Amino acid sequence: MTGIMTAVVKEAPAPGSVVRELPIPPLGPRDVLVKVRAASICGTDLHIEDWDGWAQRRIRPPLVFGHECCGEVVAIGSGVTLVAEGAYVSVEGHIPDGTCYQCRTGNSHICENLEIVGVDRPGCFAEYVAVPEGNVFALDPDMPPEVGALQDPFGNAVHTTLAGEIAGLVVAVVGSGPIGCCAVAVARAAGARMVIATDVRAFRLELAQRMGADRVVDASREDAVAVVCAAADGAGADVVLEMSGHPTGVAQAFRMLRRGGRLSLLGIPPTPVSLDLAEDVIFKGATVQGINGRRIWQTWIQAQALLRARKVDLMPLVTHKFPLAKIHEAMALLRTGDAAKVILYPGG
Amino acid sequence: MTGIMTAVVKEAPAPGSVVRELPIPPLGPRDVLVKVRAASICGTDLHIEDWDGWAQRRIRPPLVFGHECCGEVVAIGSGVTLVAEGAYVSVEGHIPDGTCYQCRTGNSHICENLEIVGVDRPGCFAEYVAVPEGNVFALDPDMPPEVGALQDPFGNAVHTTLAGEIAGLVVAVVGSGPIGCCAVAVARAAGARMVIATDVRAFRLELAQRMGADRVVDASREDAVAVVCAAADGAGADVVLEMSGHPTGVAQAFRMLRRGGRLSLLGIPPTPVSLDLAEDVIFKGATVQGINGRRIWQTWIQAQALLRARKVDLMPLVTHKFPLAKIHEAMALLRTGDAAKVILYPGG
Amino acid sequence: MTGIMTAVVKEAPAPGSVVRELPIPPLGPRDVLVKVRAASICGTDLHIEDWDGWAQRRIRPPLVFGHECCGEVVAIGSGVTLVAEGAYVSVEGHIPDGTCYQCRTGNSHICENLEIVGVDRPGCFAEYVAVPEGNVFALDPDMPPEVGALQDPFGNAVHTTLAGEIAGLVVAVVGSGPIGCCAVAVARAAGARMVIATDVRAFRLELAQRMGADRVVDASREDAVAVVCAAADGAGADVVLEMSGHPTGVAQAFRMLRRGGRLSLLGIPPTPVSLDLAEDVIFKGATVQGINGRRIWQTWIQAQALLRARKVDLMPLVTHKFPLAKIHEAMALLRTGDAAKVILYPGG
Amino acid sequence: MTGIMTAVVKEAPAPGSVVRELPIPPLGPRDVLVKVRAASICGTDLHIEDWDGWAQRRIRPPLVFGHECCGEVVAIGSGVTLVAEGAYVSVEGHIPDGTCYQCRTGNSHICENLEIVGVDRPGCFAEYVAVPEGNVFALDPDMPPEVGALQDPFGNAVHTTLAGEIAGLVVAVVGSGPIGCCAVAVARAAGARMVIATDVRAFRLELAQRMGADRVVDASREDAVAVVCAAADGAGADVVLEMSGHPTGVAQAFRMLRRGGRLSLLGIPPTPVSLDLAEDVIFKGATVQGINGRRIWQTWIQAQALLRARKVDLMPLVTHKFPLAKIHEAMALLRTGDAAKVILYPGG
Repeated sequence: MTGIMTAVVKEAPAPGSVVRELPIPPLGPRDVLVKVRAASICGTDLHIEDWDGWAQRRIRPPLVFGHECCGEVVAIGSGVTLVAEGAYVSVEGHIPDGTCYQCRTGNSHICENLEIVGVDRPGCFAEYVAVPEGNVFALDPDMPPEVGALQDPFGNAVHTTLAGEIAGLVVAVVGSGPIGCCAVAVARAAGARMVIATDVRAFRLELAQRMGADRVVDASREDAVAVVCAAADGAGADVVLEMSGHPTGVAQAFRMLRRGGRLSLLGIPPTPVSLDLAEDVIFKGATVQGINGRRIWQTWIQAQALLRARKVDLMPLVTHKFPLAKIHEAMALLRTGDAAKVILYPGG
Repeated sequence: MTGIMTAVVKEAPAPGSVVRELPIPPLGPRDVLVKVRAASICGTDLHIEDWDGWAQRRIRPPLVFGHECCGEVVAIGSGVTLVAEGAYVSVEGHIPDGTCYQCRTGNSHICENLEIVGVDRPGCFAEYVAVPEGNVFALDPDMPPEVGALQDPFGNAVHTTLAGEIAGLVVAVVGSGPIGCCAVAVARAAGARMVIATDVRAFRLELAQRMGADRVVDASREDAVAVVCAAADGAGADVVLEMSGHPTGVAQAFRMLRRGGRLSLLGIPPTPVSLDLAEDVIFKGATVQGINGRRIWQTWIQAQALLRARKVDLMPLVTHKFPLAKIHEAMALLRTGDAAKVILYPGG
Repeated sequence: MTGIMTAVVKEAPAPGSVVRELPIPPLGPRDVLVKVRAASICGTDLHIEDWDGWAQRRIRPPLVFGHECCGEVVAIGSGVTLVAEGAYVSVEGHIPDGTCYQCRTGNSHICENLEIVGVDRPGCFAEYVAVPEGNVFALDPDMPPEVGALQDPFGNAVHTTLAGEIAGLVVAVVGSGPIGCCAVAVARAAGARMVIATDVRAFRLELAQRMGADRVVDASREDAVAVVCAAADGAGADVVLEMSGHPTGVAQAFRMLRRGGRLSLLGIPPTPVSLDLAEDVIFKGATVQGINGRRIWQTWIQAQALLRARKVDLMPLVTHKFPLAKIHEAMALLRTGDAAKVILYPGG
Repeated sequence: MTGIMTAVVKEAPAPGSVVRELPIPPLGPRDVLVKVRAASICGTDLHIEDWDGWAQRRIRPPLVFGHECCGEVVAIGSGVTLVAEGAYVSVEGHIPDGTCYQCRTGNSHICENLEIVGVDRPGCFAEYVAVPEGNVFALDPDMPPEVGALQDPFGNAVHTTLAGEIAGLVVAVVGSGPIGCCAVAVARAAGARMVIATDVRAFRLELAQRMGADRVVDASREDAVAVVCAAADGAGADVVLEMSGHPTGVAQAFRMLRRGGRLSLLGIPPTPVSLDLAEDVIFKGATVQGINGRRIWQTWIQAQALLRARKVDLMPLVTHKFPLAKIHEAMALLRTGDAAKVILYPGG
């Protein structure tokens, strides 16, 4: 399929981006072309827009960014066998190489050569995005596009939360951004005895509550470690899900963990973190897991199951909607902290 | 503590039992005396009453039977350190020897020399029962005694259901007796995508539905295997919990299991079962677990968590209540099939 | 590549097979052509030759059979990206569909639509065999072809043995055919406290001993269950690996298992087996695993590691060698019971 | 049993200790008195002798220290049921409270109220030591006392090494002190594809080699991370066992770990460590385990199995022997770095 499309482009190695016309991306033999119905903005997109240190090291402009989306497959490469035109799909933005040790042993989510849509190759803040056939997941036809666009961050939360036992346990979620809020919902759905969410913003704590937190902690006013420990019989949370990536949050996450507990780290600390491994990991007999992306397709299937069975509802996370062309307005809104997920519609 | 109490006694190696006066049982140095507030009747008790083949081989009359109960600790042996008088407790009826390989490695629930309350030693269909201090579990003071008495069968269900993943999966419960109904509730609380319960009695299927089954199957009229497979995308249930012990149910359980699935066996088949291991286990890559009793105290703590957080409500299972002296009336009622758990009150 | 090759063909739905000339198989776009350097004969091949009940139900003549082999890739399809011509490879004979739930969740070894080389499509008792690029595994260049040809059965043993803990445990291997003997070696390499092998043939027991069994049991003369239990402190083996598929062996495997132990079933019982699930699984709290094929590629990588590090030596299993054209002589030898693996050389 | 014994006592809150006469310790009702046949010196003992920061915070003089020993039970308390006089035992120095959540769920090795022999209560650098009956483990009668005395540190190594898969994997041991050397031997026994040991002292590296390391790395001269990664196909070790507790070693341990790998931390860093969690844990999808003590009695039983089956030989670690009275000479020797385990004989 050829033609012109509207896309959001980081054109130069500097802050900012522009909305402009570009050719529809070409397809390799095993690629599919997805007509984007809805996309959503991730914190990573703000880093790219802002051209922070990470972006400067990683991004090679010009680049169409954006990696959370759903849409229809409107064209397929000559060698495609897994997907047909017309399929309603969400995009798995992590493209594994398929040949490394991790890919060959069922762990392609930690592929040694991951290429990321909207980071290393053209993304989905556009009318069309081309991805390998192995990177689209068929959605239930009746899933709203706003929910379809959130499968990537929801998958992060499902992967993190269900990476160990939950039923009957006290779960603390550190950082109540969109993924943290998803994790709250998943932990509740999976039978946590109590879900405690922390953050420093009232907007997010309210959302965490709406997503099912039994208790929320404003870490800017309360001692999050003390509150969690007290709520958990003085012993600390059985499971801590670190979603903030903030050094303070990370440090608190380690300290609020019960002996023998599980700490799953998803938030990305931008700098090294100083840890008291003796007290917070070793004597505790703790298990600390690094979580990256989503298991392909284990996590996606779990995610669909939770949504289909109405164990989790993602719609409260969709706080705002914009046409794609107004993305800069949308990003400004996100920076105020008073939004969770903003959905963009390339169709306008 | 000395004195006389009322108890239900299997006096002779023959069907039947009598309600009579007996001395309050003496305490060893590490035993505690529990004043029974509520007890409940298990299928095992009916086998003892009926003097079936199993009972003839195992039971040595005279014996006070019954093993599901809760009550207060009213006296403790001289060497007791773990429990104080006045504690409100439920009884773990499996008494491990504490010295075998299993006991020494955290698996006392499968102790090589298990002694069972009400089977191998005096039980709880009495005003008082004596058990080792290591066999009582402190309950929340506000737990109703009817629920406290059900901790043993509820624990069976918690142990069986949570012996593997549940969240997002299709769970089939074969046999909707009281433990099956508990398993339905636990699977639902732990985030199963769908819980399907089978039985051949309408009363039980209604109860399973009330406990949270998404779908019930009357296996006397419907093809349970076909229904479960159809409900699970044609592939079979991810998790099957066998609670019937009936040869037909067991055979169905193996057949309705998905490739790569988990089958946990709790129901006790009275006779050998013929199995197509090739098709139903090996080619499937299935995992089959034998489940015995409850993990001490892991399961109990999980059970309390689910109840305390109101993830599971056991009260619908309590269909009838009798004074202990009317136990024969209660057992007759159970045999009609139109009762789930019958609670007995030694206090009248 | 076109031309004529020599192959072993089951030509008609009846016992027997012939060695004849056939066209070299054509390649699909993602297939590779392997020039077979060495092949080996599996029990399955004898079933096909004999035209037993299973073969009658499954095989559609004419068929080139055989599925254990290694060789060089001499041609590749137009869409092949994972393998290059010249690669020295062994063939994974189980071809997963790549699209079912199992394939999508890292369990393609139990794919819902497995197609098997030499069973459902042309096999490797030929000069050339065509398989999907995803079904060849690159071998170390210095691996002898006799060992390369054994990767399929060796992989079965690795998969079965390492499907749970081994170090420090008592491991019983029931059935000391080639895969059983491999399992003996793997269990020993993985630090089993003791490896006990059973069989009814002296030849096999001697081989098991050579492969590292600490104790062998002639089950035709000794009570295998009693011997294993006695050797394991009276309690039974911690791990039992069932490799015989014989009803007697299977029954013994269940009985010789320790409480809390693991029983992994690989041998295929031809008929249903009657089991005392109460005593042998449920009260024991046993875990019974069905094992099918090899994890792709997890098992293969483990297998290479064990061979490369010289933890296991497969050469003692290679008891005989024949040119491919003498396959009927080779099969006759296998039937005597005085051979383990017979290697066939299509090159003569 | 009453009387006088020789013991090593930290008498005052200051560096040093004295050898003097003390009363034989009294027994509580569930205690046993062990006549120490052999004891060994741990790094912790040097900290106590030196009166470093940790010791100042933790130790309350006067204290008989030492916690690694074996000997005979020569007296038992009135309530003891698990052990008889005359038993040849090794001491588990971690005394769990038996009542906390961890103790009640099979994890008493991370008891919330651990009391440690020779740290919080009188230790084994004495002719006699009193411990709870639940803290002695019966040894094979033919185990040399030098080996019996090493069960505590050997157990640390067994616990750490076998806390995940080993067979067929590349294992790096960071820090080749006595426990590191034990871990080398355990990893080798459990079928590691390759065991690489690091240290900065030639004496220890030679010992690691003798205990079975395939490759040793002098981290003072070589880039340990680079060497390990290169040895492991460029990808890093599958399993890293951190035994040094040194900040440099810990940092290297995180960096040399493969994606998806397991890092088990046993060495105790004396100060906080700065970690790049993003690169070294999160993107890697790593699992980091804190390891404390030994599983009671799972680890002990595994340890006995490995020794009894001659999979591991601890005698090379016993580099020196002294009568207890010459402990200061022994400690001086240890400080030179040219000794591994020094055995002390209270009997002279």
